[in-house]
Amino acid sequence: MPIYRAPVRDTLFVLNEVLGYQRYSNLPGFSDATPDVLEAILAEGAKLAENVMQPLNRAGDVEGCMRHDDGSVTTPKGFKEAFDQYREGGWMGLAAPVEFGGQGLPYAVHTAVAEYMVSANMSLMMYAGLTQGAIAAIITHGTKEQKATWLPKLVKGAWTGTMNLTEPHCGTDLGLLRTKAVPNGDGTYRISGQKIFISAGEHDMSDNIVHLVLARIEGAPDGVKGISLFIVPKLKLDASGNPGEKNTVSCGSIEEKMGIHGNSTCVMNYDDAEGTLLGEADGGLKAMFTMMNEARLGVALQGLSLSEVAYQNAVSYAKDRLQGRSLSGPKAPDRKADPIIVHPDIRRSLMTMKAFNEAGRALALWTAIKSDIAHRSGDDKDRQVADDYTGLMTPVVKGVLTDKGFDHAVMAQQVFGGHGYIEEHGMSQFVRDARIAMIYEGANGIQALDLVGRKLALNGGRAVQAFFKEVGEFCEENRTDETMAPFTKALKKGLNDLQTATMWLVQNGMAKPDNAGAASTDYMHLFGLVALGYMWAQMARVAAAKLANGADGASSFYDKLANGADGASSFYDNKLVTARFFIERIMPETSAHLARISSGADTLMALPAEAF
Amino acid sequence: MPIYRAPVRDTLFVLNEVLGYQRYSNLPGFSDATPDVLEAILAEGAKLAENVMQPLNRAGDVEGCMRHDDGSVTTPKGFKEAFDQYREGGWMGLAAPVEFGGQGLPYAVHTAVAEYMVSANMSLMMYAGLTQGAIAAIITHGTKEQKATWLPKLVKGAWTGTMNLTEPHCGTDLGLLRTKAVPNGDGTYRISGQKIFISAGEHDMSDNIVHLVLARIEGAPDGVKGISLFIVPKLKLDASGNPGEKNTVSCGSIEEKMGIHGNSTCVMNYDDAEGTLLGEADGGLKAMFTMMNEARLGVALQGLSLSEVAYQNAVSYAKDRLQGRSLSGPKAPDRKADPIIVHPDIRRSLMTMKAFNEAGRALALWTAIKSDIAHRSGDDKDRQVADDYTGLMTPVVKGVLTDKGFDHAVMAQQVFGGHGYIEEHGMSQFVRDARIAMIYEGANGIQALDLVGRKLALNGGRAVQAFFKEVGEFCEENRTDETMAPFTKALKKGLNDLQTATMWLVQNGMAKPDNAGAASTDYMHLFGLVALGYMWAQMARVAAAKLANGADGASSFYDKLANGADGASSFYDNKLVTARFFIERIMPETSAHLARISSGADTLMALPAEAF
Repeated sequence: MPIYRAPVRDTLFVLNEVLGYQRYSNLPGFSDATPDVLEAILAEGAKLAENVMQPLNRAGDVEGCMRHDDGSVTTPKGFKEAFDQYREGGWMGLAAPVEFGGQGLPYAVHTAVAEYMVSANMSLMMYAGLTQGAIAAIITHGTKEQKATWLPKLVKGAWTGTMNLTEPHCGTDLGLLRTKAVPNGDGTYRISGQKIFISAGEHDMSDNIVHLVLARIEGAPDGVKGISLFIVPKLKLDASGNPGEKNTVSCGSIEEKMGIHGNSTCVMNYDDAEGTLLGEADGGLKAMFTMMNEARLGVALQGLSLSEVAYQNAVSYAKDRLQGRSLSGPKAPDRKADPIIVHPDIRRSLMTMKAFNEAGRALALWTAIKSDIAHRSGDDKDRQVADDYTGLMTPVVKGVLTDKGFDHAVMAQQVFGGHGYIEEHGMSQFVRDARIAMIYEGANGIQALDLVGRKLALNGGRAVQAFFKEVGEFCEENRTDETMAPFTKALKKGLNDLQTATMWLVQNGMAKPDNAGAASTDYMHLFGLVALGYMWAQMARVAAAKLANGADGASSFYDKLANGADGASSFYDNKLVTARFFIERIMPETSAHLARISSGADTLMALPAEAF
Repeated sequence: MPIYRAPVRDTLFVLNEVLGYQRYSNLPGFSDATPDVLEAILAEGAKLAENVMQPLNRAGDVEGCMRHDDGSVTTPKGFKEAFDQYREGGWMGLAAPVEFGGQGLPYAVHTAVAEYMVSANMSLMMYAGLTQGAIAAIITHGTKEQKATWLPKLVKGAWTGTMNLTEPHCGTDLGLLRTKAVPNGDGTYRISGQKIFISAGEHDMSDNIVHLVLARIEGAPDGVKGISLFIVPKLKLDASGNPGEKNTVSCGSIEEKMGIHGNSTCVMNYDDAEGTLLGEADGGLKAMFTMMNEARLGVALQGLSLSEVAYQNAVSYAKDRLQGRSLSGPKAPDRKADPIIVHPDIRRSLMTMKAFNEAGRALALWTAIKSDIAHRSGDDKDRQVADDYTGLMTPVVKGVLTDKGFDHAVMAQQVFGGHGYIEEHGMSQFVRDARIAMIYEGANGIQALDLVGRKLALNGGRAVQAFFKEVGEFCEENRTDETMAPFTKALKKGLNDLQTATMWLVQNGMAKPDNAGAASTDYMHLFGLVALGYMWAQMARVAAAKLANGADGASSFYDKLANGADGASSFYDNKLVTARFFIERIMPETSAHLARISSGADTLMALPAEAF
């Protein structure tokens, strides 16, 4: 059976030592999460993830969700009870405003815990994740009454949320949307249409389901300018605000999917269902993006979470499985073979995953802190800078963390050999589950387009220039430090490639937009490499300083390399080795991305469609 | 429902125009496959694949195989009847010796047809594929009597074969093998033990199953030097050679796998089952490799086949699905949106797959022709050169074609967005099926080790030097040709990277074998890129010559780039565009591989196991 241990020590390293989480104690919520409290929260979250969520993961995949003839849906055995523990522990409202029953803690803390929960059980946590999106949308766009009506129940987890965007003929291109809304004249609307791929669309885990539905008000303009967002509850509320009469919305079927079987992905049919407008009429796209940006960071985290749990299982297998002998002589001479972790090619896979997971965690938490600043800072300038950053980085973390998350689930599965292909070991499930994160909440190609087509040029390139400046200054500051030199050199090389690519885009993407489109995915990954490389350089700096100050472990990284690998090594030593691996083995990819980007669109677009 | 059209025109291009298939008409079998006959065979194979095999593929995935309480196994509905058509059409024995009932045609022709069949239905064709492995082993290692007993039935497809290597504790490291063989004193043995992951281990598609089983004869030495290969039939043969009494071998269970559900992957229990030795006692490893090399090329083909069929479905979807508008202005202004094939990022995926498939097909067919020469040439030197080549290239094509085949199945699935995640469209099946090809017949990490640890140094590096020489000479010959210059330049750069990496391995891999292991997977892919780049350069040369001689399509590639993409283009124009795409977008990866290779093993091996 698959295993999982929440990486609490590493989260604390990132938050406390690398990102200087305590620096932000002037922000609302941060002062409540003192170092002790933070550690206690992470430890509690870890326990829930490891002991309650994770044991249900594999069974949830096998059992899946069941739709009954009356349209009701049963989730896998134990899911509801586990979710009860989650909401009773106050996890749903961890970062939600206190006025709606939340704990008002930083979003960064929520993110740290969410990583654990999703590693433990992605399908189960999707019910919570969609609810977070609904909460964000209602907080930002709801009237006072809507907030009072819906938020306390959602924040508590008594009710859950959904996002209803996709229709059979319309995914990315929401302008094609056909679901319609007819005003009743009393402020409510009758919503009709079919939505597909609705995660957590119908289930038995909450007292009500709050559907946020994109629809077109009768007579609204064509295209995206004519779509509006509606709140459509599964059960209409009675006079005292409790779930009462059934609304005319129902689950038509559950999709047969490659993975996330524990989540009910529904075809939802709206048949004059009663709803109220959320935000402005014809302003649905904006309201949807509030929900969507939240969701995109959540999906990015799924990539990281699955990479982490798949990695942990690959490590465990690689230590146990005896096969072959080390190329440098037997390491377990008393046994018939060595554990496969002695083989360099297995190490290559494990180190690749480890190097990604640790930097990915830092990047996710850094982005979450920026999001906290953007939402909570009293300083306009600080808010703007942080908002620039999250806007820029959202497509990068979504696209890169989920692409790599999937790759690493596949890589971890490969460590198992034939045993990885058998469902019993759970590695197939990680691959199948991780696959969806590259697709939903905007397929990764759309993330890449959002980055090159929108985010780069926003406010005259203010966000991207600020990022370049920050990374450039870091390199400059640490350039002459002997320990840091290899890291700053590699990071600087990556940054140069990224800046060259950016310049190429400015020069060639405006005149011929296909050049931007043709560059987009490579540009997103190039950006991701530099961002992750920046995280590694920062982590290396902290680790080197700790070692220089006599932190645990006397031997330095360089001594270790010179003396061979045997014997214990400290947490900080390991960070330096892993950082070194990242710059030697992963960062060189920036050159290939740059070469592809600057080759332009011509060979992509030259063939007529019939030639394919 | 998924579609499939066999790429007959492209196969003919590769065989006739690029590889000069007719040059080999002096080899046995080749003279029978004249151009007309070749085309007719491919057309017939295409029909069977498209009309009979492919329609069963998705149903086979859904239905899977069923083991009954008596240990018998039922394959999916229609599989047996389709297999009947396959064997009645003589496809099983297409390249098998005439003396055993085969048609004696080139292995290259078999390979061409096998690509189609596997694209159409990988699970179904595995029953045939394993049989080919058994035929190869018995031809090479069988006694006259064994050949007479087993081959005619296998060649006809009346009986099918299996390979029984893996045991629960022993996959790659066959030295750990425990299945034992006790001599009966009459030339037969009693075989006992458990084998796992046995493809086609038990089923209802043939009159008998011929298991080739690795076991250790009582008292044999430890390790791989003490293993032998046995023929163990499901049903023992009666005096007249017909299947009679049941042998004591049975299917204990069918594995629950990620994919290839149409193939019965069995746990096989041998309980004093009667068998005969195939080849020499304690010489099982050698006999197994005969079977394995055959199987590895077959598995390489699976990578190509799934990449091709997944690509075709992505193309079809990209032409039909309307979503968004072209960045360069509406392409279907009369419709509500453009087909997504207008988007550069979709093109990037389609071109990546197309460029790989066409070069992969050329590489597979080239390798198959070399295998024909190695087996059939009357010239010792020719045989040796060809045998060197196939030995060297087997791990490369297996590792690279299956790694990329999987990547492309994933890429094709991504083109479908959310619809790709739903089983109904069949894209998930391609991904799940393609996944196994990276694992079985030697996981790709093992292929990479075989390449750097064994094949490179064999006979003083004779094979690899010959390959470098051939590619280098091609570059030199075509260096001054204006049309060819971009291709030879890119190929030469790739070759230089590969030669530098090889030199690095020679210098650093001997002294410290971990360096070779740490480089192996990158080296294999670097090798693959150069081999595929060489195929593209050759295809470009043929296409350019045809265009220069006024073949269909007046406009040149360069005119096309200058004038934009609209309008028809010829087969040869398209080849040049795709070749250009390959060198601009794919070949740059060689640099990153070289950088990783020459970073050495230190950062991989530095951490103690506990640090993971």
